[in-house]
Amino acid sequence: MILFNGQPADFIPAWDRGLHYGDGVFRTLKVKSGQPCAWGDQYAKLERDCAALALDCPPEKQLLQEIRAASSDLGDCALKIIISRGVGQRGYAMPGRAVPSRMLFASPLPDYPASRWEEGIILRLCQTRYGHQPRLAGIKHLNRLENVLARSEWEDPAIAEGLMLDLDDQIISGTMSNVFLIRDGALFTPSLDQCGIAGVQRERIIRAAHHLGITLNIDRIKLNSIDKFHGGFVCNSLIGLWPVARVNDLDWPVSNLVRDIQAWLDRHG
Amino acid sequence: MILFNGQPADFIPAWDRGLHYGDGVFRTLKVKSGQPCAWGDQYAKLERDCAALALDCPPEKQLLQEIRAASSDLGDCALKIIISRGVGQRGYAMPGRAVPSRMLFASPLPDYPASRWEEGIILRLCQTRYGHQPRLAGIKHLNRLENVLARSEWEDPAIAEGLMLDLDDQIISGTMSNVFLIRDGALFTPSLDQCGIAGVQRERIIRAAHHLGITLNIDRIKLNSIDKFHGGFVCNSLIGLWPVARVNDLDWPVSNLVRDIQAWLDRHG
Repeated sequence: MILFNGQPADFIPAWDRGLHYGDGVFRTLKVKSGQPCAWGDQYAKLERDCAALALDCPPEKQLLQEIRAASSDLGDCALKIIISRGVGQRGYAMPGRAVPSRMLFASPLPDYPASRWEEGIILRLCQTRYGHQPRLAGIKHLNRLENVLARSEWEDPAIAEGLMLDLDDQIISGTMSNVFLIRDGALFTPSLDQCGIAGVQRERIIRAAHHLGITLNIDRIKLNSIDKFHGGFVCNSLIGLWPVARVNDLDWPVSNLVRDIQAWLDRHG
Repeated sequence: MILFNGQPADFIPAWDRGLHYGDGVFRTLKVKSGQPCAWGDQYAKLERDCAALALDCPPEKQLLQEIRAASSDLGDCALKIIISRGVGQRGYAMPGRAVPSRMLFASPLPDYPASRWEEGIILRLCQTRYGHQPRLAGIKHLNRLENVLARSEWEDPAIAEGLMLDLDDQIISGTMSNVFLIRDGALFTPSLDQCGIAGVQRERIIRAAHHLGITLNIDRIKLNSIDKFHGGFVCNSLIGLWPVARVNDLDWPVSNLVRDIQAWLDRHG
């Protein structure tokens, strides 16, 4: 089911600035029995992303009610929230009295093979790079052509995810996920101050590392240093965490550290 | 009037990838008595931009018919064409049998004061920068948050346009226009191989310079070299050409060179 500003709808206004400029932000999350998972983190991130684009964030209570309504016929589902600048006229200037559009999309949960959680995935190196744009870095906004082009580089369903670099050969993220690497029992994840999306699941894993006493480093990571790592995983709010079994001709085992974080995420679902 | 895939519509499908990812391209052009101006250039650019994103470009004949239909009640008007990847499902992967969406939006021509063409405009320096992304540079795609944020920096209607730089302090363009500068009777315009939109009016002015025997340089232009120039103008397909009367504390006269190009554009409308 789709809700547009609270009403069931299969269509949105043609002059919505989300379409014309990608002028908005979004969230994708898992709903279990009508309850959005990790909602506190999700709403806090939505508020921050809206603020970064000077968008009014809808009240939490309103969103929670609408999430329950949108997911009512599916039960457990994937839910996407889009908050756009709303309907505008021709031209980049923001309308004087812009009323943001609030769009909720409920979909069946993706049906991934269990091996992705158990044995791990093949992570493919993408040619499409992230450009640097510190003003928009980290925000889950609607300008996602880089991710679309990176994801279009392969069709083989055996490849679960692609690894994206920036223009300086630094590892940034998957096309739809954040990335963590492991070395000597410590976790490393790319800093996202120039590009990429800082997802909620990334935040939760940083928290998990803290609770589990695992050293965590947020840093620039060059692709040519990847063979110094012994393992890694990708994460997002729908998949949770997939260990990386193979990347860039390296075979990685699934370590106890990865299993500990998977278990922590399951416990704090 | 709005046409969605040839049919009058005020709404578009909520799952259109233009909304979700900005996965598409657009054109804005002037229509006079049902005829799109500079159509040969406009369609050629639309074809190139579609090809750059692996989108099927609609046939020229179909678009021309629909432009006439969309503009029939307005006569002279501004017309925006959006070609998006079409309706998709959740996720960045392109749908196997994607059918691009074709959207035409006819609007009244903007009512700018005549002084903008005659005495010229104030060009304001924007804080929002273009990030570098060579894969997307020059393409008029739907990921336009940089332009939106730059345009949101001022509300004073006396300021007609904002000047956007890249992260290296290089002059790139206006928020909705391309920029040309003048020195010693020669024209200079920024190279757009790292960011920015290479508009049709920019192409036409490059052609005008060739026909008028004016030396034209496409190059990197640092902001701190702007006081070496004696004049300039901004251009797009709706406004034609506005001389810059004031930028960054410099006052510029409107030279004969500018008037010659304005006249050439009018003759080749």
